[in-house]
Amino acid sequence: MLGICYYPEHWPESMWAQDAAEMYGLGIRYVRIAEFAWSRLEPSPGQYRFDWLDRAISTLADAGLKVVMCTPTATPPKWLIDLYPSILPVDIKTGHSRGFGSRRHYDFSSPDYFREAMRISTVLAERYGEHPAVVGWQTDNELACHDTTHSGSEAALTAFRAWCQQHYSDIDALNSAWGNVFWSMEYRHFGEIELPILAVTETNPAHQLAYRRFSSDQVVHFHDEMVRIIRAHAPGRFVTHNFIPMVDTQTDNYALAKPLDFASFDNYPLGRSDLFFAKRGAAMFKPYMRTGHPDFSSYYFDQTRGLTGKHFWIMEQQPGPVNWAKHNPRPEPGMVRLWSWVSFAHGADVVSYFRWRQAPFAQEQMHAGLKRIDNSKAAAWPEIEQLVREMALCPDLLEQQVKATVAMVSTTENQWVCEIERQGDSFNQQEVEFAWYSALRQLGVDVDFVSPEQDLTGYKLVLVPCMPVVRPEFVKRCQDSGALLVFGPRTGSKTTEFQLVPQLAPGLLQALVPVKVLSVETIRPDCAEPLFIGQKQYQSQCWREELEVPQSCQVLAHYHDGLPAAAQHQRAVYVATVSCDDFLKALFADLLKQACVETVVLPHDVRLARRGGLTFLFNYSAKPSKVAAPANAQWLLGSATLDGYGVAIYR
Amino acid sequence: MLGICYYPEHWPESMWAQDAAEMYGLGIRYVRIAEFAWSRLEPSPGQYRFDWLDRAISTLADAGLKVVMCTPTATPPKWLIDLYPSILPVDIKTGHSRGFGSRRHYDFSSPDYFREAMRISTVLAERYGEHPAVVGWQTDNELACHDTTHSGSEAALTAFRAWCQQHYSDIDALNSAWGNVFWSMEYRHFGEIELPILAVTETNPAHQLAYRRFSSDQVVHFHDEMVRIIRAHAPGRFVTHNFIPMVDTQTDNYALAKPLDFASFDNYPLGRSDLFFAKRGAAMFKPYMRTGHPDFSSYYFDQTRGLTGKHFWIMEQQPGPVNWAKHNPRPEPGMVRLWSWVSFAHGADVVSYFRWRQAPFAQEQMHAGLKRIDNSKAAAWPEIEQLVREMALCPDLLEQQVKATVAMVSTTENQWVCEIERQGDSFNQQEVEFAWYSALRQLGVDVDFVSPEQDLTGYKLVLVPCMPVVRPEFVKRCQDSGALLVFGPRTGSKTTEFQLVPQLAPGLLQALVPVKVLSVETIRPDCAEPLFIGQKQYQSQCWREELEVPQSCQVLAHYHDGLPAAAQHQRAVYVATVSCDDFLKALFADLLKQACVETVVLPHDVRLARRGGLTFLFNYSAKPSKVAAPANAQWLLGSATLDGYGVAIYR
Amino acid sequence: MLGICYYPEHWPESMWAQDAAEMYGLGIRYVRIAEFAWSRLEPSPGQYRFDWLDRAISTLADAGLKVVMCTPTATPPKWLIDLYPSILPVDIKTGHSRGFGSRRHYDFSSPDYFREAMRISTVLAERYGEHPAVVGWQTDNELACHDTTHSGSEAALTAFRAWCQQHYSDIDALNSAWGNVFWSMEYRHFGEIELPILAVTETNPAHQLAYRRFSSDQVVHFHDEMVRIIRAHAPGRFVTHNFIPMVDTQTDNYALAKPLDFASFDNYPLGRSDLFFAKRGAAMFKPYMRTGHPDFSSYYFDQTRGLTGKHFWIMEQQPGPVNWAKHNPRPEPGMVRLWSWVSFAHGADVVSYFRWRQAPFAQEQMHAGLKRIDNSKAAAWPEIEQLVREMALCPDLLEQQVKATVAMVSTTENQWVCEIERQGDSFNQQEVEFAWYSALRQLGVDVDFVSPEQDLTGYKLVLVPCMPVVRPEFVKRCQDSGALLVFGPRTGSKTTEFQLVPQLAPGLLQALVPVKVLSVETIRPDCAEPLFIGQKQYQSQCWREELEVPQSCQVLAHYHDGLPAAAQHQRAVYVATVSCDDFLKALFADLLKQACVETVVLPHDVRLARRGGLTFLFNYSAKPSKVAAPANAQWLLGSATLDGYGVAIYR
Repeated sequence: MLGICYYPEHWPESMWAQDAAEMYGLGIRYVRIAEFAWSRLEPSPGQYRFDWLDRAISTLADAGLKVVMCTPTATPPKWLIDLYPSILPVDIKTGHSRGFGSRRHYDFSSPDYFREAMRISTVLAERYGEHPAVVGWQTDNELACHDTTHSGSEAALTAFRAWCQQHYSDIDALNSAWGNVFWSMEYRHFGEIELPILAVTETNPAHQLAYRRFSSDQVVHFHDEMVRIIRAHAPGRFVTHNFIPMVDTQTDNYALAKPLDFASFDNYPLGRSDLFFAKRGAAMFKPYMRTGHPDFSSYYFDQTRGLTGKHFWIMEQQPGPVNWAKHNPRPEPGMVRLWSWVSFAHGADVVSYFRWRQAPFAQEQMHAGLKRIDNSKAAAWPEIEQLVREMALCPDLLEQQVKATVAMVSTTENQWVCEIERQGDSFNQQEVEFAWYSALRQLGVDVDFVSPEQDLTGYKLVLVPCMPVVRPEFVKRCQDSGALLVFGPRTGSKTTEFQLVPQLAPGLLQALVPVKVLSVETIRPDCAEPLFIGQKQYQSQCWREELEVPQSCQVLAHYHDGLPAAAQHQRAVYVATVSCDDFLKALFADLLKQACVETVVLPHDVRLARRGGLTFLFNYSAKPSKVAAPANAQWLLGSATLDGYGVAIYR
Repeated sequence: MLGICYYPEHWPESMWAQDAAEMYGLGIRYVRIAEFAWSRLEPSPGQYRFDWLDRAISTLADAGLKVVMCTPTATPPKWLIDLYPSILPVDIKTGHSRGFGSRRHYDFSSPDYFREAMRISTVLAERYGEHPAVVGWQTDNELACHDTTHSGSEAALTAFRAWCQQHYSDIDALNSAWGNVFWSMEYRHFGEIELPILAVTETNPAHQLAYRRFSSDQVVHFHDEMVRIIRAHAPGRFVTHNFIPMVDTQTDNYALAKPLDFASFDNYPLGRSDLFFAKRGAAMFKPYMRTGHPDFSSYYFDQTRGLTGKHFWIMEQQPGPVNWAKHNPRPEPGMVRLWSWVSFAHGADVVSYFRWRQAPFAQEQMHAGLKRIDNSKAAAWPEIEQLVREMALCPDLLEQQVKATVAMVSTTENQWVCEIERQGDSFNQQEVEFAWYSALRQLGVDVDFVSPEQDLTGYKLVLVPCMPVVRPEFVKRCQDSGALLVFGPRTGSKTTEFQLVPQLAPGLLQALVPVKVLSVETIRPDCAEPLFIGQKQYQSQCWREELEVPQSCQVLAHYHDGLPAAAQHQRAVYVATVSCDDFLKALFADLLKQACVETVVLPHDVRLARRGGLTFLFNYSAKPSKVAAPANAQWLLGSATLDGYGVAIYR
Repeated sequence: MLGICYYPEHWPESMWAQDAAEMYGLGIRYVRIAEFAWSRLEPSPGQYRFDWLDRAISTLADAGLKVVMCTPTATPPKWLIDLYPSILPVDIKTGHSRGFGSRRHYDFSSPDYFREAMRISTVLAERYGEHPAVVGWQTDNELACHDTTHSGSEAALTAFRAWCQQHYSDIDALNSAWGNVFWSMEYRHFGEIELPILAVTETNPAHQLAYRRFSSDQVVHFHDEMVRIIRAHAPGRFVTHNFIPMVDTQTDNYALAKPLDFASFDNYPLGRSDLFFAKRGAAMFKPYMRTGHPDFSSYYFDQTRGLTGKHFWIMEQQPGPVNWAKHNPRPEPGMVRLWSWVSFAHGADVVSYFRWRQAPFAQEQMHAGLKRIDNSKAAAWPEIEQLVREMALCPDLLEQQVKATVAMVSTTENQWVCEIERQGDSFNQQEVEFAWYSALRQLGVDVDFVSPEQDLTGYKLVLVPCMPVVRPEFVKRCQDSGALLVFGPRTGSKTTEFQLVPQLAPGLLQALVPVKVLSVETIRPDCAEPLFIGQKQYQSQCWREELEVPQSCQVLAHYHDGLPAAAQHQRAVYVATVSCDDFLKALFADLLKQACVETVVLPHDVRLARRGGLTFLFNYSAKPSKVAAPANAQWLLGSATLDGYGVAIYR
């Protein structure tokens, strides 16, 4: 199914009916509205104006469209800020208040904002909760975007002290957990605790981790209450949230997703590629500058599916150039269609485009829509028409479930650990995780992202690219899974309180793979060294652990100096370094074989994904490409010879 | 004529007379004084000391020198700051007060400073306005240098609110003009308006543009009042200001120049080259590190001439290494002479060197003068002696007028638009404009810079490299001009209130060239792509617009994918991309031919300029170079074979 | 002798005795304790807890170990900060208070902290001053680390005004000394003076230099009082301080060292190499990433020896990877032993490792120790065992004195001058000094670092790489020394008040080498130019002075344009440019020959050092290397064929 983001308040009311009719005509069925409309819904304190929204919903409903309503809490109006200036968050790098004039100018710890945000949510939910055209709700918008999870405000300090008291009860327990004796950082009572910001030099990483957990909890608490309010007034309607990647939210997206019916994702392949690959040379980047890296969208799709373990929505899909990356190319012709199909292949039930018509004003005026500002049809339009025709060829698409046999374990907590303690400036946890994911995808393997709290039964191969904090229950789940297990560098090295594990890394995982990390070194990115699987040479880079490998283990790879770089013990493998991509592909190919997971030989830039009985093929290159498909493949779309930027589907 | 910047207060009075005699002996006729002397003129509140200045002026006058007097307002003394601390400007990036201890430590919106600056200006003008030796005045010094146009002070906020009220009258008009509905940024009254600084993320570009217009207006208002005061007391004396480039002032230099008799420019070819070309490789930069780029000084000279449409002064000319760029080479021998001749060729009436003798103390002690601190003659001295001899060969130089038939339209407003909305980090409006200018200069063409408010009649070719905001009157002027018109990327794309034009870019200019910009993309600088004129290949880079070209237009260039990159309709051309320099040279050569503007084949690094009946040739290379001159050329200086760093003049 | 840094408060008391026994068993004799233990020594105001420290000392003493006690003033506890919040320093770049949560959170100008720091020092000195096991004291820890010398606090402002009054007596004298007339920066009285921070643009360099002198004096004053207190209570015990490089302290380390018995240095070859060579390419850096540059440790050792002119301690020696550089490789096997031997060869009497056991918690948990956190022996352990065995082969090692015949003159003051006025962004005084030092060391020459206040008699060659401020007494010392003298660029160019010398550089040194610097230029690092000794070509880079050379001088080198680049007059040489390393090696080889200093042809990556009758050879490469040793060499360790990373000693 397809959807659209629409802002009736941006357009003359006279345009609404035709807009709605055209949406329906194009094949759109869902319309998301009202997410930034607070100043129009409550122009002055307590003076509500719902007439225009009532009429907008009616117009959309009359055209056959279903409405997804938003709480407008990402943009509190000026009068509210002036009433309660302490709503503004405080920048943790400068100590300055972050002012009004854009969006997300609120502190998750502000009691005033909590009350006011829940008030407007209640008012909206009361009014539209049972509206027949409103089929679901989106909470706020891209929670925690623009680095707003962390605030250095007085409100945050007060709340953090209370959070510490609640979590540690006793100040000596906290001092001991954090190792505050180290630099006489010991507190005598919880009222002495500071936020771990703006100190003379690096603050205690345990202190920083606690602050990140607290900050994430504040977001979750805010969001939970909002969901509770909506549910109380909107029976039978779904509640979702449009997530951005965890690496950007600094919030535990798993926790945030818990009360939702399903997760949604805002998908901007080109904008995000530009930022993620900013340091890569043109040789790597240029082929994908108008397509996005072949694994980059699906990397987030599989993560989003993992948040609730269910199918998901793409709430915002880039339909053309955006305005916010460092460079903003337009998609190659065909890519909007291709990305949409990739979304469906990885478990999307709805793809909703952002936005209907490009806005002629304000911050995002250079962000493309389906229509240009002269109301002409933009480049994505015919691609969506084509998509709608093609979707009709797969009538049972939404009934198909994604069922991967390979899982990657990811957590926000460990992203925090690696950000707090980089040890080498060139270590980037997300890049490590993406490299592992991409290697699997290049081998034609479907991947689930799972949290370490999740049951691992049924998976044949479980990969843990970088997870310093390992809890006993997770070790148990690994043992129970029966899967072949692969642990990457840093995994198991830290306690939950950001101390080194007493038995040396990988700590509790030594029950599975009895190696020991004797030392860790980090290497300048331009000083990579040879890495070997047998005689075949690859590259070790950035992060290298010195491994003690007992006789019971088999060495799978070694460094240039002959020391072991990866070892296997029974059904568990430990990889002690960050490496080039080819190394991962070679290593994983072997391990997938061991795990009896089928791999597929794919042409460069071609990817394969399976959703239930359907197999999808995507060509990210301009050149046609021929794939080896089963002889009995029943082609719903395309054929084994993929066009440039082509899609094919067979059953 | 030649001038000099002199600071009698820096030297023992016993040196003044000899200094004056030597100045005159060298050929200097104008001496600028007193620009930073406030603490000597008024050492304590209200206690004036003019005796020393009286004596200094007498000494200079006695030697035959004419004095240019300055208001000392760029450096308010400490006691004034302590009396009125709110004089200090506030940094818009940090919110901090910018303190005493250097210069320009004042806020253009401070009512206290406005009053005090006008008081000292009045006192000075009263005393020296009719002094026979004082022939003219310089206002302040390099207004708005050091990013002082913008301030985040309370005074600025108050003034900005008043400015908004005056410009928009009605708050709904402002909300609508800025599109404040976009993120619930709507204001209920003018007292709610904030400065567009220190917000959570990007503020509304319309808000930013209004703030820039306001800030520029504050500078102009300050300056207008100062000029009014001087004129009231100094009948028959000229008033000028020593400008720095518009890109650095953030002020509308056209507006600032309006009440002046002529504009002056402070010319530092090496310092500015170092900063402007900082990202270019050594292969491009090194040949010019001691000469400046051949088009870089004249680029500013032609702009300065354009401010008032008249000849101008070089108020400060670099005579050796300076102290303030990232790297500060000394000029190649001969360059001070060459730069001086370039100034005259482009319309300077006076070239004044900064400074007489190098200061042994304080911030600029590493800035060369004509004399070293041991009172010996520095490297520039004999070059100026030579220059004076040569000037005698062109006795009618100052009667000659620069008359270009090619104009480039430039505005500060559009520089602001492009800075506020870069869309791609590598888009730089000034670099685009300079590339266009340089291509013309390499073809031997003289160029006027004009404001869009100026009549275009008489020009054969008018180029508008990048002017997003186009007003109907400008379109009218274009239509009336009869010139061949060339519009560059972004031109015509925005309304005056920083909205997208409703008919798509180039908006109103579609009356001249009926193309449509369907989408815009920005490209990483290392991902340039082929660009073609016919079969000949060039490079498109950084910025690329997708163009709809009707049948009535001729496609002049196309992208690698065959789509049009430049198109002509009758007498108007639209160029949709940023390109390599060779593309511009090739395109402009064709268009100049169409426009019947003569081009000259010049050796690499040689430039040609015409002032009235005089033609000047300049060789920026160390190697001699032979140019093709008319057979009947009457050589006033040099010959068709230019020495290294040589100058030749023929009639 | 060997030592160790130990933190009994980090470990269960039950581990202490075994730790002590193992230390002694390994060959360790000194244990440094208590440096960050304030919160354990005084958990609440006035409530002291010495019982645990008493027991710790007893335990160590019982095992045969001698204790070095520290004052814990680098880490004031939270309750003290809450009592006196103005103890916190203020960031001079932002104006923000630098908060609690790490270390060194105190302002050297805070009267409250001065009183409290001396109180805790007194209490400790009273208790342990005459303790038989306590043989010496370390003051504070790495004074002024983390940029804490400079503070922008009210306390600093008040103290700076008083300092100025004391130094200049008369405000007119200060105005004149600083050249405040330049931009009307004149003060009317000392109460008007500001700190030279947070101004609109660059502040007066003389003002900045005064502020740096003041700030250094504050550190010295603080430290002097602490030493006085310890001496009053600890008769017969040594007092030392663990220095970090002067370039990082912004304090005059010579002044700081004055009251000490000897200086100590904290030696982190890999961490510091990573930072110092960060901009160098992998080709230069990679060979040394696990060894450190062959001259980099000794560069600091020779400086440390120079602080008091006596032997020194290495108080902290890196035993494995650290945590704080941008990249943190582990040492090549053998390097901990090699670095220790290098320390001894350059005059260390004790090498003390940091730290005994890696801490599992807090900021430095990734910093290696001699033992891992599972109490196993880390990589350095067997190397130290080997070292102890080898030290027994040189029983008279500590009786040998380092006696160099070549001296390099270094001062903190001139480092400040070059930092304040870079003139070219790529000019780095420390890099220039290191290049000169490294060239000498590659020629097998031992080097003393001396302050300009020191007698130069006895040296054959004295080098002054970069010393803008030259006082008459230093010229006298040069004249009296009889040494061949070599002065580098900028030397002699400034007065003590940061003005240009009136006679042009090298100012007073013209008495020795009568050249004149006519102008100075700075060059982009990628725009180096040829430099010649005779016909042999080298490279001039970054900094180039134009030299007037009288007939009485011999030109030793010239630039690409034929102008002189180095000149000699009798026994004095002036070098006018920064150059490539090969130029320095060639030039110094000639000059050493003139000075009758023996040079040694060493293989690449091999270094030689002499301590009394012992000659040490070090191989920084993995490859064995053969050196030419005297035929009668008596080998105490190794042989003329050095192993990879090998050490050899002969008498």
